[in-house]
Amino acid sequence: MKKTSRIPNILVSNDDGIDAPGIYAVVNELKKFGNVTVVAPDEQRSAVGHAITMNYPLRVKKFYKNNKFFGYAVEGTPADSVKIAVRTVLKEKPDILISGINHGSNTAINIIYSGTVSAATEGTILGIPSIAVSLTTYDKPDFSFAAMFSHKLAEMVLQKGLPKDTLLNVNVPPLKEKDIRGVRITRQGKSRWDDTFEMRRDPNNKEYYWLTGKLEVLDISEETDLISIFNKYVSITPIHFDLTNYKAISELKSWKLEKYFKK
Amino acid sequence: MKKTSRIPNILVSNDDGIDAPGIYAVVNELKKFGNVTVVAPDEQRSAVGHAITMNYPLRVKKFYKNNKFFGYAVEGTPADSVKIAVRTVLKEKPDILISGINHGSNTAINIIYSGTVSAATEGTILGIPSIAVSLTTYDKPDFSFAAMFSHKLAEMVLQKGLPKDTLLNVNVPPLKEKDIRGVRITRQGKSRWDDTFEMRRDPNNKEYYWLTGKLEVLDISEETDLISIFNKYVSITPIHFDLTNYKAISELKSWKLEKYFKK
Repeated sequence: MKKTSRIPNILVSNDDGIDAPGIYAVVNELKKFGNVTVVAPDEQRSAVGHAITMNYPLRVKKFYKNNKFFGYAVEGTPADSVKIAVRTVLKEKPDILISGINHGSNTAINIIYSGTVSAATEGTILGIPSIAVSLTTYDKPDFSFAAMFSHKLAEMVLQKGLPKDTLLNVNVPPLKEKDIRGVRITRQGKSRWDDTFEMRRDPNNKEYYWLTGKLEVLDISEETDLISIFNKYVSITPIHFDLTNYKAISELKSWKLEKYFKK
Repeated sequence: MKKTSRIPNILVSNDDGIDAPGIYAVVNELKKFGNVTVVAPDEQRSAVGHAITMNYPLRVKKFYKNNKFFGYAVEGTPADSVKIAVRTVLKEKPDILISGINHGSNTAINIIYSGTVSAATEGTILGIPSIAVSLTTYDKPDFSFAAMFSHKLAEMVLQKGLPKDTLLNVNVPPLKEKDIRGVRITRQGKSRWDDTFEMRRDPNNKEYYWLTGKLEVLDISEETDLISIFNKYVSITPIHFDLTNYKAISELKSWKLEKYFKK
């Protein structure tokens, strides 16, 4: 439990890039109660997973919106942006990190590809209570409710803290407040992409492929993020980065690999 | 339980790139018992996390080593390589996937940045028993024991199958077989990078940053991947991609967010 009476320092990042409408919407809302610093990729870096840049130098530039300083644009991934924000841009560790608002959902299997979630994961690794927020539509977005919700949830997290090494992955349905049925604490759903690679030929007659595909939902439990959204609830999933499948450990121990590989 | 009497079809990928010595070593070993197809990134894609390419077209080229066809080089990430292998290069789903052998460890927090693990994760998502193998040294590597171990473990997995939605993350110490003390089934360790960004100036006097840093080990239990390696054991960690922190669900439910956000 953690109480903050002073004005909180809020770090905001995303994966849609610093010029995306979703980050602008949430920053305007968060400024109502906090000191906001924006450090985000200079351009869209969706589906980058938890990539970081080690073999190339990173550059950071000041970014202006409507002729006013808005934040720092990083030539790198969402995880790079959070690392460099905490290690060089900011003088002290922020009280909270908000990643988003992503234009498009980050649920079920897509969490592992998500740059939005990756920024919040990096924040958590660095010891900052972190929230990833996504608006679950690919149509023209209205971020107003999701931004307001992010503000309220951020205040709550600042007051209560988060479970150790855990971030919140929030998905908000693209509805007006009056049409949203409530909030659900969920688990990550199960889904699978039925990938298709569309083969085309370039002007030199060389083959290339575009990745397309459709999502197959493998678990229609109401407890999952996907189905909560479908049922018009805001979904909040606590996620962590211990990938160990503890249930599998005893099965693997029964293989007696020790013996099998004995010299 | 699954028995394979015919010659198994083996898909091999990595993140060090198709021309790396680690993939060459494991392919030579796996060819002793299986039909091997190599589909791997055309160049090094380390620390790419679980990135996939959606906004650019992918190209696949045949790659020759010592004037002999070796495999397919993909202008993309490890996850891209596995997806395109299964969806377009191969006529049928392979019996097993081996990712590696990576030059450098993939333990503790580094698992979430790892392209080697990402290739095996993508294989698992696609329903293929998958193993990521890393040799835990940054010095000049000798892949011979790790390659032999991969061969034996692959045969075992083909015989026994793997727990559902679970891959094996294998780390092999850079030692001769006689100096390795055995095999341990482990959990993912805890560690944190103490990142530093080294600021430099380019010839135009503009700032840029290089990411460096040192790893802090936060858990020295013998049950972890990191400490098993340190103690000269091969480490095998079963990992999955359900990131839900189930223990945190009840705590978050006690926040009564439903009530807090009630209209």
